[in-house]
Amino acid sequence: MTTTPFANSPEFSFIDWVREQAPLRDDVLLGIGDDAAVLDPAGRRTVVTVDVITDQVDFDLQQTLPERIGRKALAVNLSDLAAMAAEPCAAFVGLVLPRSLSRSSLERIYAGMFELAREWNVAIAGGDTNSWDGPLALSVTLLGWSERRKPLTRAGARPGDWIFVTGGLGGSLPSDRHLTFEPRIREAQLLASTYDLHALMDISDGLSSDLFHILNASQVGAELDGDAIPIHADVDRQLPQRERLLHALNDGEDFELLFTVSAADGQRLLNNSPLAIPVTKIGVVTRGSAATIVVEGERLPLQRGGWSHQFGS
Amino acid sequence: MTTTPFANSPEFSFIDWVREQAPLRDDVLLGIGDDAAVLDPAGRRTVVTVDVITDQVDFDLQQTLPERIGRKALAVNLSDLAAMAAEPCAAFVGLVLPRSLSRSSLERIYAGMFELAREWNVAIAGGDTNSWDGPLALSVTLLGWSERRKPLTRAGARPGDWIFVTGGLGGSLPSDRHLTFEPRIREAQLLASTYDLHALMDISDGLSSDLFHILNASQVGAELDGDAIPIHADVDRQLPQRERLLHALNDGEDFELLFTVSAADGQRLLNNSPLAIPVTKIGVVTRGSAATIVVEGERLPLQRGGWSHQFGS
Repeated sequence: MTTTPFANSPEFSFIDWVREQAPLRDDVLLGIGDDAAVLDPAGRRTVVTVDVITDQVDFDLQQTLPERIGRKALAVNLSDLAAMAAEPCAAFVGLVLPRSLSRSSLERIYAGMFELAREWNVAIAGGDTNSWDGPLALSVTLLGWSERRKPLTRAGARPGDWIFVTGGLGGSLPSDRHLTFEPRIREAQLLASTYDLHALMDISDGLSSDLFHILNASQVGAELDGDAIPIHADVDRQLPQRERLLHALNDGEDFELLFTVSAADGQRLLNNSPLAIPVTKIGVVTRGSAATIVVEGERLPLQRGGWSHQFGS
Repeated sequence: MTTTPFANSPEFSFIDWVREQAPLRDDVLLGIGDDAAVLDPAGRRTVVTVDVITDQVDFDLQQTLPERIGRKALAVNLSDLAAMAAEPCAAFVGLVLPRSLSRSSLERIYAGMFELAREWNVAIAGGDTNSWDGPLALSVTLLGWSERRKPLTRAGARPGDWIFVTGGLGGSLPSDRHLTFEPRIREAQLLASTYDLHALMDISDGLSSDLFHILNASQVGAELDGDAIPIHADVDRQLPQRERLLHALNDGEDFELLFTVSAADGQRLLNNSPLAIPVTKIGVVTRGSAATIVVEGERLPLQRGGWSHQFGS
């Protein structure tokens, strides 16, 4: 990896700072400081995800604590590895920095990332930093391991499966939960080791969009129970119930798990969940490709953004 | 991975286009389209590098063929994996796009990347694309495999080693060679399988900077032979010899290999190189930490940017 100079300080002292602070792991045989990093998979599969977050889209540089920006850049990737029930190992950080960004803000961005990395035992194993006359963008690649012979994808949902979500949905942006959420790494691993998960993903765009990724990949339909969908406490309690439900369906940035299991596994999960956070049955998988949601007793077609008021279009 | 909508077209049709065009590999068990990619290391080490290239720093969006921008974003990473003598496997593409960029320019950027990827049997296994009110930046993470038990780093140079470079140095930027260079993947693998390479890296900042990475990491010095340094034909032949040498030392973006081997291996290499491109002995590794260069019979201290005109500072 190459690194061009940081605006307000010599290039090498900043790299030295990063190298000194960066969390390490034993299976990262070679980390920051050479042409590439070397990791030891120890017989496991390598799982990789990349997410780009940018100023004015995913955060507001003027309004957001720098630590939270760095934290989010890593957290959204941790959520993607949770969606594979993988064990995170090492992150690689591509940064483009506005020339006006201070060294101290940059260090705080990294500090937020390092703190979350330590919490989840993730090494920071490489990166590339550029300054430019543009806004701040962070591209983090996260690599992890999976023992699974067959990847746990969005494609395995079967008619009759029960559909579950962890936690509550909606209100993530106004409450800043999108900056502070806990990636569901542990929950995903617990669920995957206890039940036969047929399909698993994380909710980033919003349930009403993301569910279709599972339905399309699995070539199935779904029937959601609108009354059952867990609305997060961050959604204004003063709003009418239908509006609150729309927030839960559409706000996105929930970073909760969405998954399907057989009815038998679903019943076991309801009876005796291994999770410390709520897990809620929100519907069932059906044959065909239609997705519906029951809202106040009325069955309506589910669509991105909520539901339409009649069938057909 | 999440993907926000592309400016001029629906998000999903662009992702579908990428997925349809993206080169695949058998050891990429799961590529674009799920929360993460899954790769099979098959007992090997995982080698990872990331490079960010940006408009006005690494290319000029107005002046550069889009295909060449995409090509360079991948090529600089291939050069980093060459520097580890690793086999490239899969690339992950983080993009931030100015909203003004046309769909066709974006497709041409990807097309340039795909073409180079196919040439080197690299899968495009994931990515994340964002549009914003800022310039174009590409962050590519490249993952590959190595059979080596011990990574081939910059840290193994020993006093008495001979120092070699592949190809010629200098003039890469004005000639646009930095956009069209061939990464030295094959050369690195051939050299690493034929000789005991003590230290290996690629030249990106320029020989006069990059050599110090090997010297510092290996805690050794060096004595370069200025007359031996291979000056690329892209460096103006009308210039005085000392100026041409300075271009070779300092221009950077050569993406050639810089390595050290024992004198015995060095002699074998000179007698019978396995490479189809030139490989040149440019000096020897010494004890201590001093780096010198002999220029027209005069031994001078080597430093970033060339040499100083006297010892001490």
